[in-house]
Amino acid sequence: MTLKFGLLGAGRIGKVHAKAITGDANARLVAVADAFPAAAQAIADQYGCEIRSIEAIEAAGDIDAVVICTPTDTHADLIERFARAGKAIFCEKPIDLSLDRVKACLKVVRETKATLMVGFNRRFDPHFAAVRAEIDAGTIGTVEMVTITSRDPGAPPVEYIARSGGIFRDMTIHDFDMARFLLGEEVAEVAAMASVLVDPAIGTAGDYDSVQVMLKTATGKQAMISNSRRATYGYDQRIEVHGSKGAVAAENQRPVSIEVASAAGYTRPPLHDFFMTRYTEAYAAEIAGFIAAVAGKTPAHPSGEDGLVALALAEAAMKSVKEGRTVKVSEVLG
Amino acid sequence: MTLKFGLLGAGRIGKVHAKAITGDANARLVAVADAFPAAAQAIADQYGCEIRSIEAIEAAGDIDAVVICTPTDTHADLIERFARAGKAIFCEKPIDLSLDRVKACLKVVRETKATLMVGFNRRFDPHFAAVRAEIDAGTIGTVEMVTITSRDPGAPPVEYIARSGGIFRDMTIHDFDMARFLLGEEVAEVAAMASVLVDPAIGTAGDYDSVQVMLKTATGKQAMISNSRRATYGYDQRIEVHGSKGAVAAENQRPVSIEVASAAGYTRPPLHDFFMTRYTEAYAAEIAGFIAAVAGKTPAHPSGEDGLVALALAEAAMKSVKEGRTVKVSEVLG
Amino acid sequence: MTLKFGLLGAGRIGKVHAKAITGDANARLVAVADAFPAAAQAIADQYGCEIRSIEAIEAAGDIDAVVICTPTDTHADLIERFARAGKAIFCEKPIDLSLDRVKACLKVVRETKATLMVGFNRRFDPHFAAVRAEIDAGTIGTVEMVTITSRDPGAPPVEYIARSGGIFRDMTIHDFDMARFLLGEEVAEVAAMASVLVDPAIGTAGDYDSVQVMLKTATGKQAMISNSRRATYGYDQRIEVHGSKGAVAAENQRPVSIEVASAAGYTRPPLHDFFMTRYTEAYAAEIAGFIAAVAGKTPAHPSGEDGLVALALAEAAMKSVKEGRTVKVSEVLG
Amino acid sequence: MTLKFGLLGAGRIGKVHAKAITGDANARLVAVADAFPAAAQAIADQYGCEIRSIEAIEAAGDIDAVVICTPTDTHADLIERFARAGKAIFCEKPIDLSLDRVKACLKVVRETKATLMVGFNRRFDPHFAAVRAEIDAGTIGTVEMVTITSRDPGAPPVEYIARSGGIFRDMTIHDFDMARFLLGEEVAEVAAMASVLVDPAIGTAGDYDSVQVMLKTATGKQAMISNSRRATYGYDQRIEVHGSKGAVAAENQRPVSIEVASAAGYTRPPLHDFFMTRYTEAYAAEIAGFIAAVAGKTPAHPSGEDGLVALALAEAAMKSVKEGRTVKVSEVLG
Repeated sequence: MTLKFGLLGAGRIGKVHAKAITGDANARLVAVADAFPAAAQAIADQYGCEIRSIEAIEAAGDIDAVVICTPTDTHADLIERFARAGKAIFCEKPIDLSLDRVKACLKVVRETKATLMVGFNRRFDPHFAAVRAEIDAGTIGTVEMVTITSRDPGAPPVEYIARSGGIFRDMTIHDFDMARFLLGEEVAEVAAMASVLVDPAIGTAGDYDSVQVMLKTATGKQAMISNSRRATYGYDQRIEVHGSKGAVAAENQRPVSIEVASAAGYTRPPLHDFFMTRYTEAYAAEIAGFIAAVAGKTPAHPSGEDGLVALALAEAAMKSVKEGRTVKVSEVLG
Repeated sequence: MTLKFGLLGAGRIGKVHAKAITGDANARLVAVADAFPAAAQAIADQYGCEIRSIEAIEAAGDIDAVVICTPTDTHADLIERFARAGKAIFCEKPIDLSLDRVKACLKVVRETKATLMVGFNRRFDPHFAAVRAEIDAGTIGTVEMVTITSRDPGAPPVEYIARSGGIFRDMTIHDFDMARFLLGEEVAEVAAMASVLVDPAIGTAGDYDSVQVMLKTATGKQAMISNSRRATYGYDQRIEVHGSKGAVAAENQRPVSIEVASAAGYTRPPLHDFFMTRYTEAYAAEIAGFIAAVAGKTPAHPSGEDGLVALALAEAAMKSVKEGRTVKVSEVLG
Repeated sequence: MTLKFGLLGAGRIGKVHAKAITGDANARLVAVADAFPAAAQAIADQYGCEIRSIEAIEAAGDIDAVVICTPTDTHADLIERFARAGKAIFCEKPIDLSLDRVKACLKVVRETKATLMVGFNRRFDPHFAAVRAEIDAGTIGTVEMVTITSRDPGAPPVEYIARSGGIFRDMTIHDFDMARFLLGEEVAEVAAMASVLVDPAIGTAGDYDSVQVMLKTATGKQAMISNSRRATYGYDQRIEVHGSKGAVAAENQRPVSIEVASAAGYTRPPLHDFFMTRYTEAYAAEIAGFIAAVAGKTPAHPSGEDGLVALALAEAAMKSVKEGRTVKVSEVLG
Repeated sequence: MTLKFGLLGAGRIGKVHAKAITGDANARLVAVADAFPAAAQAIADQYGCEIRSIEAIEAAGDIDAVVICTPTDTHADLIERFARAGKAIFCEKPIDLSLDRVKACLKVVRETKATLMVGFNRRFDPHFAAVRAEIDAGTIGTVEMVTITSRDPGAPPVEYIARSGGIFRDMTIHDFDMARFLLGEEVAEVAAMASVLVDPAIGTAGDYDSVQVMLKTATGKQAMISNSRRATYGYDQRIEVHGSKGAVAAENQRPVSIEVASAAGYTRPPLHDFFMTRYTEAYAAEIAGFIAAVAGKTPAHPSGEDGLVALALAEAAMKSVKEGRTVKVSEVLG
C-alpha cells in the first residue's frame, strides 16, 4: 500500500519532508502547496509532483495524508480543516504557541478521529531511539535521572527569535519531549533558570539564550536540560539516562570520524553544524513511522497530546523563571 | 625545606594522608595521634613516626603543621586550638555542619593569621585541574555553563548517612566547591530537587539519595549538578564547562583502559569503584599544594572561606528543596 | 547536465549502483540489462527505467555511460565493447583476474580514449577521503607508515571463494588500492604471510582466510595490511597513516553510537555487519565522482591503471607467500 | 618476608628500580653500587641505603637479590657472578647482544639453579596485562592475529644508537617479547622491512629508524609490528589481539584525559612523552612480580630463555632485511 501525500509549505523544512516522502517506498508525493509559487515549483520540478492550492488538496480524492510545514500560526487551523477533511495529518511542531488554542484544536482531532502526528523528529534519531530501546529492554533497570544537553551551533536571527515564542517554546520544547520520551512517566514539577550570555540583542528582544531546567515526576524521577543558542564546536546533542542497573548515553554525531595526532594532541573534527545534516536519518524515520501508523490504523506518536504537554512544560519553565520557584505542571495544564 | 607534620586521626582518610605526606620529598611525618591506640600504632609502624597525644602535638616544637582527620564534630575545635598554637592546618572537609560554628572558627583563624586549607581534594585531581587550566588559559573563552555529574558506586551505611548532615552537606558539597572553582564567580542563586530512588532506608533516615541542583551567578553563569548515591558502573565523576569560545570536559577514569570486541559489541571495564583509587593522585597533589603554600607563606586554597561558602550552598539547596523555590545565597550566608 | 546511464547487471551490487544513480540529481538511469529477466524487472519497477539487452544499450543514442556489474569474467570484454561504442565506463573491480588480460583491455581503453573508472569504492568513503585530505593538506607531514586493518564479518561461501581468484585478489585488493591511495608513491616491494585459521574448507579450496602483508616504496615508505575473513564484532575497516609531523586515523563505523554502562563495564554496539551499510555513503560519492569526471572530461580515478597495479600487488603477495621472500613489483608488472 | 636488595647501577633505569623497591612493602634496598660515586650517593641519600662495591654486594650475607642496571656489555658477566653467589637476579634487558654469549650465560644460570628474571617491563603494564588476562579467560577465543604499534617520542642520540645493537635488538625486542607473550605459541618465521625515514644520521650509523615486521607461528598465528623512532604526539604504545571469538585492544595512555571542543574540533592532550611516566605502574608491578617469584621459589617470568628468544627474533629480523626473505627462527636459534 502506498500513502499519497499532499505537502503544505515548501520552505526549508518542507523540502526535508519532500525528500523523505519521495525516498520512502511506501509513499508518493502527489501535490505541493505554497503561497510562494517559486517554492512550490522547485519541489514540483525536483520530484515530479503537482502544484495545487490548499483547498484543492483538502478536496482531493487522490490524497490520503498531509504534511503541514506552513508558518506556526496556521498549524492549528490547518489541522482542524484536514481533520474534518478526513486526511491523516503530520504537523511540524508546535501546534500553536497558545495552550488554549492547542487544546481546542486537539478537541477537533478527537471528534473527527483523525490521525495526527507531531514532528518531534528527535525521537526517530537512530541513536536516541536506541537509547529508548535499551530502557525498554530493561538494560539499565528503572529510569532515575535523565540528562539532556542541547546546544545550537549559533543563534537564529533576532527577528526569528522575536516570533518564536521564546527559547523554552522554540528550542527547549524538543528537550521537554525527549525527557518525557525517556522518563516514561509524566513530569510533575519544573524549575528553570535563564540568562542572556550569547547575544544582548536576544535579551533586548525579550528572550534568553542560555537556560537550564530541572524536571521531576511524581515518583521522584529527575531530568536536567541545558540549552545554549551557541556552541562553537557544532550541534551539541547528547542524552544520558541513569537507572538502577546502569546507564545509557547517546554521543554527539560527526560528519567524519577521523582523528589527527600531532604535537598539539589528538583532534577530531567538529560536530555537524546544522540540524538537517545531524537529523537526516531522523527525518526519514519519522515519515516512515507516520506511514506505518496510518497503514496500521494505529495512533501516531508523538501525538497531539505529546505536543500539548511539551508546550505546557515550556510554559511552566517560563513561569518558574519569572516567579523564582518550582512550578507544578498542573498549574499550567489545568 | 622539609615541613614536619602531625597527623590527627589515623582512620581511613588519615592513612591516605599519611601515605601522601611520607611520599612527598618536602615533608616528614613526625607524629600521629588517635583515640584508638591500634590505629595510631599501624601508621607508626608503617611509616616510622611517633605516637603522641593531641596535646603533645599542640605543644611540640618539632611540628610545623597538622592534618586533621578526626570526626567532623571535632574539626572546628581543633582548628582553633592549632591556629592558636601557631601550626599550619590542613583540615578534612567539612569544618563543621553548622554555618555559625564555621564562621566563629574562621574568625579565630583570621585573628591568629593561621594558614588553613580545607580538603576539597578534587581541585587537585590532574584531570580536573587541567580543565581549570584550560579556562585560565582562555581556551574556551568566558565560562557560561558548568555541568557536574557525581555518582558514588554505592551508598554508605545508613548509620553514616544519619550523622552526615545530609547528602547536600556530605556529598554535593564537593560539587558545590567544584562549581565555584570552575565558574570563577560567586554563586548567587540555588534551586534543588531531591528524591529517594536508591534505598528507602535513606529516606527513613531523613535524607535523599538522588539530587539535582542548579546554580546561577550574578552575571547569569549557570551550573548543574547531578548526584546519586549509586552507580553500578563505578565512581562516576565528570565535569564539563561550556564557554563562549568552546568547551572542555574531564572524562571518567578507569583502572585499566582496554576494550574487548565481540558479537555483543565493544566493552571497556567499569570505572574505579572507590574514591581512594579514583583520587590517588589528587590526594598526593593536595598535600603538595599545602606544603607549597606553607613554604611560600601564601594563602592556602581551598581556604576556610571556600569551606564556608560550599556549606552555605548546601544549606541553600536544602532550603530550596524544602520551600520549592529558588534561594538566594545571601539568605543563608548573611 | 544529466548523465544518462545504462546498468549492466542487476544483482546485489547492481542494485547498489541503481540506487546511487537514481539518487543523484545529475544522473538518470535509462536502462538496465541482466541475463535474469526477474532481476532486471525488479530494478525497472523500482526506478522506472527500461529493460534492454546489452546490445541495445551498446547501440543506444540516449545512453552516455554504463555501469558494469556483471560477473568478473565478462568485465574486460564489456569494457572493450563499450569503449569502442564511445560510452563512459564505470566497472566494478576487478577488471579481470589475469594481469595480461587487464593490460590488453587497458590498451583498448587508451586507444579509444574512453573514460574508465574502476570501482574501488573505499576511496570515496567520507572518513577515508578525509584521511587523504589531511595528508594532502600537509597536516601530518611526509607520509611514512600506513596501517590497514580490514576484516570481514564472515567468510563468503566456499563456492564463491573458489571462483574469487584467492583472498589477495578478492579482498586484499581493496587494501592494496587504499595503501597506494595513501602512500602517494608506488609500491616497490611486497612480502606476505598467509594462513587458514577461520575455516579449513577455505584451505581445501586452495585459499587462505587470514593474511598479513608488508609493502615498501622505493624511498622506504612502509605499509602493513591485516586481513581476516571473520570478525565477530562486525565489519572492521580501519586505516592509520603515520607521518613526519603526526598521524591520522579513520575509526570503525557503527550503525548506532550509544554506550551502555553497567556493572559489566561500558559497552557500545557492534560495527556495521555488511559492506553495503558500511559503505552506503561511499557508493553514492563514487558515482558522483564518476559523473563529475565525465562532465569535466577529466580522467576518472581510480583509473584502469589503478586497477592493474592493485592486481599486480595481489600477484606479488601470492608469489611472496609461495616463495617465502620479498617480491619486487617489477617482477610481476614487467 | 622482606626481600633485601642490592642495586647494581645507579643511572636512569637504576633510579626507577630504586623507587620501585623502596615503594614495595615486601622489599628493602640495602645497598647500591655504581662506578660513579655521585650517582650511588644520590640514591643512598634519597632512600637511606648503603653504598657498596659490586664485590661487597656479591659477598654480602644481608642481600638476597640484585637488580642489574649496569651497561649492557656487563650483564652476562654479572648474571654469572651473582648466580654463583646464590643471589636471585633481576637483569635489565638485554642479557647480551650476542646470542652465543646469552646461551652460555643461561647455561650457568641453569647449573646454579639461580632465579633470573629479565626486564621486559611491558608485560607488567596493567593495561597490557589486562589484555593477556582476557586471552587467558577465553574471551576472544583462539588467538589469531596480534598487532603491535610501538613508536618512540623521539630518537635517542646517534651515539646511543651506534652502541645499541640496532633498532631490532634495542627497540623491537620489547615488541618481540610482547608478541610471544600474546601469541601463546612460539614464533616460527620472521619477515622484516626497514627504512631510514626519521634521521639520515641514523642510517649513517648503520641502523634504521622505521621498521615493520611480520611473525608467524607453526600453526599459522600471525603478528605484525610497526616501529618508528619518532612520534610527534608522544609515546605510542598499542596492542591489539584478534581471535576466533572477538578481539581485545589496549589503548594509548595520557597524563591527563580532558577534551577541549572548539571551532577547530575536539582535542585531547598528547600521550605520555617518556617511557618512565608511561610505564610507572609497570616498573612497580615488575619488581613486585620478581619478589613474589623469589618468595614463592617459583620460576620468574619473563625468564632468561624469554630474553634469549626475543634476541633471536631480532637476529632473524635483521637477517630478513639483509637477505630479502622470510627467515625461519630455527636458522638463528639453532
